[in-house]
Amino acid sequence: MRVLVTGASGFVGRAALAACVAAGHEAIAASRSRPLLEGAFAWRPADLLDRHAAAALIRDCRPDVVVHLAWTVEHGKFWTSPDNLDWVAATLALARAAADAGVRRFVGAGTCFEYQWPADAPCREGATPLVPTQLYGVAKHATRSLLAALFELRAVEFAWARLFFMFGSGEARARLVPSIIGALRAGEPARCSSGRVVRDFLDVRDVGAAMVAVAGSRITGDVNIASGQGVTIADVARMLGEIAGRPDLVRLGALPDRAGEPPYIVADVARLRDEVGFRPSRTLREGLTDAWRQSASGEGRTGALERP
Amino acid sequence: MRVLVTGASGFVGRAALAACVAAGHEAIAASRSRPLLEGAFAWRPADLLDRHAAAALIRDCRPDVVVHLAWTVEHGKFWTSPDNLDWVAATLALARAAADAGVRRFVGAGTCFEYQWPADAPCREGATPLVPTQLYGVAKHATRSLLAALFELRAVEFAWARLFFMFGSGEARARLVPSIIGALRAGEPARCSSGRVVRDFLDVRDVGAAMVAVAGSRITGDVNIASGQGVTIADVARMLGEIAGRPDLVRLGALPDRAGEPPYIVADVARLRDEVGFRPSRTLREGLTDAWRQSASGEGRTGALERP
Repeated sequence: MRVLVTGASGFVGRAALAACVAAGHEAIAASRSRPLLEGAFAWRPADLLDRHAAAALIRDCRPDVVVHLAWTVEHGKFWTSPDNLDWVAATLALARAAADAGVRRFVGAGTCFEYQWPADAPCREGATPLVPTQLYGVAKHATRSLLAALFELRAVEFAWARLFFMFGSGEARARLVPSIIGALRAGEPARCSSGRVVRDFLDVRDVGAAMVAVAGSRITGDVNIASGQGVTIADVARMLGEIAGRPDLVRLGALPDRAGEPPYIVADVARLRDEVGFRPSRTLREGLTDAWRQSASGEGRTGALERP
Repeated sequence: MRVLVTGASGFVGRAALAACVAAGHEAIAASRSRPLLEGAFAWRPADLLDRHAAAALIRDCRPDVVVHLAWTVEHGKFWTSPDNLDWVAATLALARAAADAGVRRFVGAGTCFEYQWPADAPCREGATPLVPTQLYGVAKHATRSLLAALFELRAVEFAWARLFFMFGSGEARARLVPSIIGALRAGEPARCSSGRVVRDFLDVRDVGAAMVAVAGSRITGDVNIASGQGVTIADVARMLGEIAGRPDLVRLGALPDRAGEPPYIVADVARLRDEVGFRPSRTLREGLTDAWRQSASGEGRTGALERP
């Protein structure tokens, strides 16, 4: 099976590419810069914001399946960036090119920010209302509607993989786990909010493997990509303190809580587990332990091919 | 007030342009071909599918208000045409350019095909569920969500004018009213289906005037553009037969009914009437009478500036 992974040099893209190679698929990586990854894949430099580039890419690669992960993800800015609109347009151009070229299957990347999260129950595909509020979630959700309508007309199998919270190798340093690890590594206090909110974290290697499992399945429609386990931010921080052997440096409540943070964002993973047949390869603690170790070796930055 | 009307050479665009001129606004028409209309407006040739053209247009015109009517409308094909996706992208590029240039207000064109029509009640903004099923409605609805999110962030006033059924000068010949008039003019039978379904028709001159009224108002959010009056297709056909003096030529039931036609699509027009303060200038019979007369004089084709 020939799989084209877009955004393959990004945080999730690289993990999906690694999983694709590990699964024995013929993997083609499309990205602006070469993915920092060793292994058997072809790289096609492509700027998908150029719609002609999208058409040329699909025409040249003739993939059976597209796993589309390219999007704007600048930390802290992507929530409200107008670049989200450019990525809607870029995704539509890619999708149209895929349909025109007879691509069999297309897997898009959605987000838990499409859901109107219940305060105390997991988000379930087809049941939890889809009411995104920020531009990022609105853009992802609009894209899903448009792709679903297009691909239904063109008989392309379409799955929409909704990503929740992630951590792991290649993560931007300003994000939760790397910022705590960075402080602990330096022997400095890791200043956190109260961390009372509950989230659903999955190691990015498992996210990549789940994307490839969805790509290799016949599942259509929405599917959550997550662990199904809720954990508080405080628990994540404390776990990292224990792993680092410096629980004393974790300072919960040192930073103010952000107003309006939703208390509970957790996925129902019945579809992923029972219909796709995917289960994560590691626990949260195992994943965080790897993240801690990689922060010493620099492995996360050099990007050797990891077991997905 | 400087108003930029896109798609100004189209069916609705030309009517909106005429209404804009009649209302005394500084009207700028953007379209690929020059609008067939006399009167005091400036024309800017523009192909909005070229996103750079959109930005240049807004930068050069510096409108206070944009009335965006350009879209793919090829009769019989636009329901499922992938060109709808290109018009989503073009509209996003135009909207982003408008926000960047400090445009004060943006009026987009939605459609009654965004609604999940109740079987026997009018569609009301904010109450009737929005569940478009065909690519055209999905594309319009996705565009609305994206523009609303963008313009909220950028403090641009945004109204989404949802169009229902229209007829009048400049209408494509294959559509209902021109096709019946064409047969009657030729003294041939006007073969129709049973025509039992109920629709909400408004003369395109009133549609154009309503769009300009919305543009000149401060209303935001969704607003239906329609008459608020339900009429069967059979009644429209019979009325045309009477106006033409050849009721005998109207053959209801000569064509099969289309399967799955929704029985009732009518607008609640309370917002348009009470908040915008707009009322149509003519009844359905008056509008159809004008359409019949124009079909003799060729007025609809030459496109003299009409009273909106």
